[in-house]
Amino acid sequence: MEFNLNSKELEKLLSKVIPAVPTRTPMAILENFLFKIEEGNLTVFSTDLEISLRSSIQIKTEEEIKIVVPAHLLYDVVRTLNDTQIKFETEANSKLKLTTDNGIYNIGYSSPEEFPPIPKVIEENQIIINGKALKKAIDLTSFAMSKEEMRPAMTGTLLEFTNEGLNFVTTDGHRLVKYTNKKIKKPEKEQVIIPERAINVLSKLLTENEIKTTFSKTNISFSIDDVVFISRLIAEKYPAYNSVIPLENETELKINKSEILSSVRRMSLFSTTNTKQVKFSIKENSLVIEAEDIDSGSSAKEQIKCEYNGDPMDIGFNTAYVLDILNHLNDEEIVFKLHTPTKACIIEPTNKKEDEELMLLLMPVRLNG
Amino acid sequence: MEFNLNSKELEKLLSKVIPAVPTRTPMAILENFLFKIEEGNLTVFSTDLEISLRSSIQIKTEEEIKIVVPAHLLYDVVRTLNDTQIKFETEANSKLKLTTDNGIYNIGYSSPEEFPPIPKVIEENQIIINGKALKKAIDLTSFAMSKEEMRPAMTGTLLEFTNEGLNFVTTDGHRLVKYTNKKIKKPEKEQVIIPERAINVLSKLLTENEIKTTFSKTNISFSIDDVVFISRLIAEKYPAYNSVIPLENETELKINKSEILSSVRRMSLFSTTNTKQVKFSIKENSLVIEAEDIDSGSSAKEQIKCEYNGDPMDIGFNTAYVLDILNHLNDEEIVFKLHTPTKACIIEPTNKKEDEELMLLLMPVRLNG
Repeated sequence: MEFNLNSKELEKLLSKVIPAVPTRTPMAILENFLFKIEEGNLTVFSTDLEISLRSSIQIKTEEEIKIVVPAHLLYDVVRTLNDTQIKFETEANSKLKLTTDNGIYNIGYSSPEEFPPIPKVIEENQIIINGKALKKAIDLTSFAMSKEEMRPAMTGTLLEFTNEGLNFVTTDGHRLVKYTNKKIKKPEKEQVIIPERAINVLSKLLTENEIKTTFSKTNISFSIDDVVFISRLIAEKYPAYNSVIPLENETELKINKSEILSSVRRMSLFSTTNTKQVKFSIKENSLVIEAEDIDSGSSAKEQIKCEYNGDPMDIGFNTAYVLDILNHLNDEEIVFKLHTPTKACIIEPTNKKEDEELMLLLMPVRLNG
Repeated sequence: MEFNLNSKELEKLLSKVIPAVPTRTPMAILENFLFKIEEGNLTVFSTDLEISLRSSIQIKTEEEIKIVVPAHLLYDVVRTLNDTQIKFETEANSKLKLTTDNGIYNIGYSSPEEFPPIPKVIEENQIIINGKALKKAIDLTSFAMSKEEMRPAMTGTLLEFTNEGLNFVTTDGHRLVKYTNKKIKKPEKEQVIIPERAINVLSKLLTENEIKTTFSKTNISFSIDDVVFISRLIAEKYPAYNSVIPLENETELKINKSEILSSVRRMSLFSTTNTKQVKFSIKENSLVIEAEDIDSGSSAKEQIKCEYNGDPMDIGFNTAYVLDILNHLNDEEIVFKLHTPTKACIIEPTNKKEDEELMLLLMPVRLNG
């Protein structure tokens, strides 16, 4: 077998496929690319069994071959080469030989039998999603996925297709994020849960272009420009999150986001390491935020202007969760919708957008003393 | 005690002193700043017992006090505050109280008795060094300090003051770097060895200004703008490095640095992990570089144009050491001065500078087979 490829073109191709190659795996075969040459096309596959990537390039050859090549070695060689022509040849001793003007590189390859099959997604469901819109949804919601393996559904991101829009939902039991893009509609209601690693890789692959999304009960695929990304779905039922969202939170605290973020950041320096507790004391025009580290005897208290329409209330939160939420909001004014100090609090931007909805839910913590 | 300070001025002061605060130490007292107020000056000290930093600021108070304050807590609070006036007060219960327009912060302080004494450097030897020149010398040499605690002298950087210039020398036994700044002269020959951590901190503190450098047998101090940096010296004799530098290396290999760097980088992908060996086969107009990974059966060979005035020679190196050296040379053309495949090789820029000299020495490795 023999074909020629430009180093920069090949680098571009491999850079798209390498994210699915696992860095540490007991299955050494997964540290390879599967190279398939068929009908004048070189297709490169990678997988870690949960996610897989593939991309193709046209080459001039009439041969057909399938080989398995060390992914990082090949990618690292190709990306450190200057812009040059590379001649690829397979040698009798299971060596892939790369020849450039100045160098010869022999890389051992193996046969493709052991390489896991790349799943095919049955085109049961298909929908076009804009890449930029998908990226935005992931950026706003992915931080709240659970790290606890005990409840597998919550370790992923729920995509809930409805005829009113596409909901992205994440929760770890302490906070919940629901983002709706009302422009992406589907006549039948469908649910898929995408694992965290797939969400992270997807987020980096996305461009501003339209993405053909296809899913079955077990897999989802995204066609992003000339790359196909497939992920296993989490085959679990997502918790009935709507029942957690309170409807009676009539009391509203409107506040400047940068001010409260900066203040909670300072409070996190003072809050006791294991509880991370911060206390909000809310009155008509002022929010007093307090934290205390009992071990070191240090404490802090700040006052911020706000608008509040309820009776004075003291409510406690975990600083880490408040910071996470505030750090993921891009709006300048936000509203905390409250009911009582033991009931879930809802945080939203005050400035509503036409085709989107964002709601963050945060569970309070019981105040000491 | 009471005084006022602007948050941004205090942040600037603390940022200069915090680098000497250890992040992990069994001596909890070292995680503090020593605050000394005397004659209308607030001086802040920090030390990890090896290095220490101090800087001062004028304040309006007639009181005198010495207290020990948690360094990271204070610094983190101050740097997250907007530009604001801070009122400092000491309270009866060993609390330092900071008050701003919007907040009150109480930080527990302790008495200064346990804080280690900051060494005073007897002004035996004094010399002015330009900050930019010192930074350049550190950048060129620091990478070759040894990590082996067995020979303490080699874990630091040797500063050798002579009446022909100031030598900076580092070595780990596999390679040696000697950089001379001929403009910094001292009538009497003096040697000091500065520990690695001090070199790293010093490198970050240096500005372009002149630096008053004072040293005794045990300590060295650098006055950098309004900061005083003191380091313990390594009280050992530095190895007689001059006896290692070969004088008979008459054979010269001139080569483009970027080309050889890029090639050795690719070879490092192929060289066996434990030996990291790369082979240079040198002929009149061409250098052939080869590496092989026996375990995976992969290999690579590249050819680079060069100028060479000796008999053909094969010589082996450790790719990691070659890369380290090439990465620290800023020149476009370099020369390898060789004798035999088992003798030390000297690497130098071909373009000599008037007031500087740079020499890198690299030990070859025995070639397999």
